[in-house]
Amino acid sequence: MTNDATEARVLDAVRQRRELVNAAIDEELPLAEPERLYEASRYILEAGGKRLRPTVVLLAGESIADVDPGSVDYRSFPTVSGSTVDLLRAAVSIEVIQSFTLIHDDIMDEDDLRRGVPAVHEAYDTSTAILAGDTLYSTAFEMMADTDADPANGLEAMRMLASTCTKICEGQALDVAFESRGEILPDEYLEMIELKTAVLYGAAAATPAILLGADDEVVDALYRYGIDSGSAFQIQDDVLDLTVPSEELGKQRGSDLVEDKETLITLHARQQGVDVDELVDAEIPTDVTDAEIESAVSKLRDVGSITYAREKAEELTERSKRHLEVLPDNEARRTLAELADYLITRGY
Amino acid sequence: MTNDATEARVLDAVRQRRELVNAAIDEELPLAEPERLYEASRYILEAGGKRLRPTVVLLAGESIADVDPGSVDYRSFPTVSGSTVDLLRAAVSIEVIQSFTLIHDDIMDEDDLRRGVPAVHEAYDTSTAILAGDTLYSTAFEMMADTDADPANGLEAMRMLASTCTKICEGQALDVAFESRGEILPDEYLEMIELKTAVLYGAAAATPAILLGADDEVVDALYRYGIDSGSAFQIQDDVLDLTVPSEELGKQRGSDLVEDKETLITLHARQQGVDVDELVDAEIPTDVTDAEIESAVSKLRDVGSITYAREKAEELTERSKRHLEVLPDNEARRTLAELADYLITRGY
Repeated sequence: MTNDATEARVLDAVRQRRELVNAAIDEELPLAEPERLYEASRYILEAGGKRLRPTVVLLAGESIADVDPGSVDYRSFPTVSGSTVDLLRAAVSIEVIQSFTLIHDDIMDEDDLRRGVPAVHEAYDTSTAILAGDTLYSTAFEMMADTDADPANGLEAMRMLASTCTKICEGQALDVAFESRGEILPDEYLEMIELKTAVLYGAAAATPAILLGADDEVVDALYRYGIDSGSAFQIQDDVLDLTVPSEELGKQRGSDLVEDKETLITLHARQQGVDVDELVDAEIPTDVTDAEIESAVSKLRDVGSITYAREKAEELTERSKRHLEVLPDNEARRTLAELADYLITRGY
Repeated sequence: MTNDATEARVLDAVRQRRELVNAAIDEELPLAEPERLYEASRYILEAGGKRLRPTVVLLAGESIADVDPGSVDYRSFPTVSGSTVDLLRAAVSIEVIQSFTLIHDDIMDEDDLRRGVPAVHEAYDTSTAILAGDTLYSTAFEMMADTDADPANGLEAMRMLASTCTKICEGQALDVAFESRGEILPDEYLEMIELKTAVLYGAAAATPAILLGADDEVVDALYRYGIDSGSAFQIQDDVLDLTVPSEELGKQRGSDLVEDKETLITLHARQQGVDVDELVDAEIPTDVTDAEIESAVSKLRDVGSITYAREKAEELTERSKRHLEVLPDNEARRTLAELADYLITRGY
């Protein structure tokens, strides 16, 4: 668990890298023609985001290269063989993939708010949102192809990016299918979030190892760090959806409940005999009241479902940190461990 | 121009490769879990398609390697350096990208029929169609990453695939924008179809050159062969939309007119003073009568707009064939030239 001092340190590490990542997004994804397409493509990226995944890319690179965080230019980052790669571009690539999935997911889930602003399909229209997502998809691959890595490593990074995207699609398909399915086991839910959410953290952590030419053992361990901490991140997201006020969430609190999204919390509650389907009457997030959400959350809390989810997230986080032992013992590695803690202690 | 004998030869060359490509699609894109996602992803691929782009991949490879068409296993195809690559997998990758664009375009264009069957968003639903397209997108990259090419060549093929997809998105965005824009110049239209349609033919022709390790001059010439013949293909598609009966088209004849899609034909007619917007009253393809389409086409024919488009397609085709002169003079090269002719003489 983090205390205030370590949380401040993590947030500072994320903030420092976020500024560089934001500047790099502007460079890597310029407002090209057709302008409306690129405006729509950049819209969610410009609406904010903590840049956690790019931070993982950069920190993992720093730990592998055993350099002091922030001491080396991410655009010409030293590899094991002595050449350099553009690690910042790889970090942006991962963030751009994340944005593509948000845009398409919001269409599929009919979520009209994202990061406190209208989703792309609301701010523009569904066609533009589909196409903006498709554009981000390929530009992310273009970026990952141009990191100046040794070709074998560059190709392997591309392969990982592609298989990661396939898994994300599979996870989203499972998530959608769960909404209209009978009993779902917690393990099925965990498999779904691993595919839908955690594999991109896995790719964020493993890609720098691939690009820098680290041993397979390091690639695998970092991938598993990302999978475990990314799964914990998603469970925390589910908890936050229920416990954080709407204005901080940037969307309606409890919208998962309104939209009948199953989470580890609702699955546990069902096992405790709670009639989850009757917890809220509203059928769309704009129709629900805070009182209704508060009452539903109380019931989930009373049967221990929120505690259950938190404990599962903590267990995954502890496991994620053990994977880091393969890295040199340095500040970047410690920050990666603290970041894993932060993913499940963050309040928004 | 083709005569009946050369057309029969081209169709035979396409048919032979289509069988191999179809078998390879089954192998490369198995019905994995979640099954409904993969069913939807394979749906358009299984609904037919001539496999013209994969045929271009395979023929270009055979011409570069200077082997008799069909004499060498496409799965272990000889490169310039003596190693082998899986050219069939690269061919499938290009076809899978084509399928992804069809699925997403049909959502955006609200086209409900494709290859004579309901479009994916009709046969399933819009969310599934978005996700099926996204899945094909990444699996195409996974396939292209696994051709066993020299890593530098493999990475370059991935780079071309990514930039091709970005251009296709840009072209689709321009196409959509044209529907609600004022005067469009023929050159703007040609730029749009180059992006939307021709670049994938360019990638189909250039990718084997990249994977086999051919000289840059060969890569460039084949790319331009694909761009020119692919542009001509799209112009012919626009002509066919107006001139071929619905049952042969697999969708309503004249649907471009109904949907206010600008083509080289309508742009030319506007320049001749035709009030294109008043040619048909119906606003959706299911509402239009054949008589209404026939009358509209007569007017377009009378002012020479269909002849104009045909001549432009012929000019592009002649130029495309000249790019092939960089290849060894062999049967595969002759078939590529005949295929370019076929693309603008085909009746469906």
